[in-house]
Amino acid sequence: MELQHGGNVYDGGLEAFRRNGTLLDFSANINPLGMPEGVRRAVTEALSQAVHYPDPMCRKLKEALGEYHGVPEEYLICGNGGADLIYRLVYALRPGTALLTAPTFAEYEEALKQTGTEISFYRTGPELEIREDILEQMEERPDVMFLCNPNNPTGLLTEPSILEAAATRAEELGICLVLDECFLDFTGQEERSFIGRTEEFPHLFILKSFTKMYAMPGIRLGYGISGNRELLECMERAGQCWGVSVLASEAGIAALKERAYKEEAVRLVRRERQMLKKGLEDLGLRVWDGQADYLFFRADGVTDLYERLYPEGILIRRCANYRGLDRECYRTAVKTREENLRLLEALERVLSKGGRPQT
Amino acid sequence: MELQHGGNVYDGGLEAFRRNGTLLDFSANINPLGMPEGVRRAVTEALSQAVHYPDPMCRKLKEALGEYHGVPEEYLICGNGGADLIYRLVYALRPGTALLTAPTFAEYEEALKQTGTEISFYRTGPELEIREDILEQMEERPDVMFLCNPNNPTGLLTEPSILEAAATRAEELGICLVLDECFLDFTGQEERSFIGRTEEFPHLFILKSFTKMYAMPGIRLGYGISGNRELLECMERAGQCWGVSVLASEAGIAALKERAYKEEAVRLVRRERQMLKKGLEDLGLRVWDGQADYLFFRADGVTDLYERLYPEGILIRRCANYRGLDRECYRTAVKTREENLRLLEALERVLSKGGRPQT
Repeated sequence: MELQHGGNVYDGGLEAFRRNGTLLDFSANINPLGMPEGVRRAVTEALSQAVHYPDPMCRKLKEALGEYHGVPEEYLICGNGGADLIYRLVYALRPGTALLTAPTFAEYEEALKQTGTEISFYRTGPELEIREDILEQMEERPDVMFLCNPNNPTGLLTEPSILEAAATRAEELGICLVLDECFLDFTGQEERSFIGRTEEFPHLFILKSFTKMYAMPGIRLGYGISGNRELLECMERAGQCWGVSVLASEAGIAALKERAYKEEAVRLVRRERQMLKKGLEDLGLRVWDGQADYLFFRADGVTDLYERLYPEGILIRRCANYRGLDRECYRTAVKTREENLRLLEALERVLSKGGRPQT
Repeated sequence: MELQHGGNVYDGGLEAFRRNGTLLDFSANINPLGMPEGVRRAVTEALSQAVHYPDPMCRKLKEALGEYHGVPEEYLICGNGGADLIYRLVYALRPGTALLTAPTFAEYEEALKQTGTEISFYRTGPELEIREDILEQMEERPDVMFLCNPNNPTGLLTEPSILEAAATRAEELGICLVLDECFLDFTGQEERSFIGRTEEFPHLFILKSFTKMYAMPGIRLGYGISGNRELLECMERAGQCWGVSVLASEAGIAALKERAYKEEAVRLVRRERQMLKKGLEDLGLRVWDGQADYLFFRADGVTDLYERLYPEGILIRRCANYRGLDRECYRTAVKTREENLRLLEALERVLSKGGRPQT
């Protein structure tokens, strides 16, 4: 099995760092504040309920989510992480054709391979940004298209006017538009969200995850919002009815109460992102203006940065397996000040030893 | 969404019983000893690891399972409960035709609907047993067939000679034989398992679950064993790579160490099954000779036994939605002595009030 993603902290070569607790994982984009105490407590308390099967209808969790987002509960679907919902959506639609941006999160394409979907790729602009010409490509009328906002791995937000036009055109052309807002919370610009607009755009499906903001990727919980009831019902049937564990459900309900934690995270990430960006630029790296809890950068001429950091127990994300990117492209999470400084120090060390980026 | 299964303890009408802790769920077949303390502890301790994504390859869990069953790790696949693996298998095979027994666990058929598979049903014998004539139906060469041993909802074990002949013929005809042994542990007859024979029968896929024996349906963990590496790889790709949560993985590793707990459960279930069977028969119910932690029975002329028990906060499993069964068919879990006596008392009460079975 080939590993596509970051966050692979289980590698045999990292055993020593895992054991003495010095492993630094910048390859997954998880809230640097760690899992909120309220979430941990909720999981521990939920253990006595885990002798029962989960509620196939996720009623308690949907009630909490409905209230949190101000959307009707019947517009919600919950899943075993956001990735579960990507596969369910693809199995439910069985799309003949799809439009993806290049680069973007690899799991959309992986899921679409399962249904033999013919995929067109929208080539982003010179700075990897999504531009208005994506509307032209929509005229090919794909059955489904995926937009990730902010995009992964670049962290770039797409212009609201472009998203607005895309959602409108998707409606006119009958394209299911999947808008992945899993990292939008971290931008501090949630007014850009389309969550409140599912009635206006019934072809829209918004993907959300608890994973990143609440630092709980190992618990598995994601959800989707859509005004298309028929699509949601097909997605429910596209997999088992007990996909969301009792522990995940209770973790999610507890997480939604963590408003102060979330605000603090957004502040921390904003501050640290600036510091880290500057630090990376000072090392001669070309850093994108990402708005999420990660930064995308290019190390011109340096294709082995991952391999140089690995022996120090530091993981960054190699981006060569993203469509349209190459081996000089990397992504790093934004973490705490102390951790970010350790990354910058390590980078300084391996760049001065192994060769600096060409400038 | 229609609820197909038992274990639906979240019904609004059960709120009062849930709150005061008197709800008795005989509709799901969960180890009456409850979740082992070692499993609870493992989940709590794993929380600090849940800030990482799960290992897509489930290496630690597969190592523990491989050692437990004495099978190579590359013959194993882990999933978000056994049901996850049923869907993955069906999506991986995309079978044109399938053979199911009637009755059996409904999830096989639900999954096969998603791939538009044409399903033939083997009608079990007069006592709902699987007989040698299933071999004749295998001559239709379905792409896949499912056998549940012991069967659900009857609890009946199929003759070893029939299983042996079916596995051999499946091999000759190229039929993928899914053997669901999720409840086999409870029979105390694990020598009937085909787990050690996956090399001999590469078309065999054995389904196992932690749910029932370790009373952890709310944590979600199942696994499969097969000598067919290609099938396992297709199943990995048929869904997300992070299906098994960090918490479930650690729960499973801890569960496999609970050998004394398991032995005690098998003893308890054997003893209580006998007591409960006699008690049900004394009430005029026709009880099958089930070997698992549940009993199947018929209440001739009584179609509302579920509805009569519900107001007392007691859930049994109505079996009318099993193919080949009707509204006089029911299933009940085997629980602790005290709980079983409460069920028998309640049954005595509602039968004397609402009408006894015809005899």
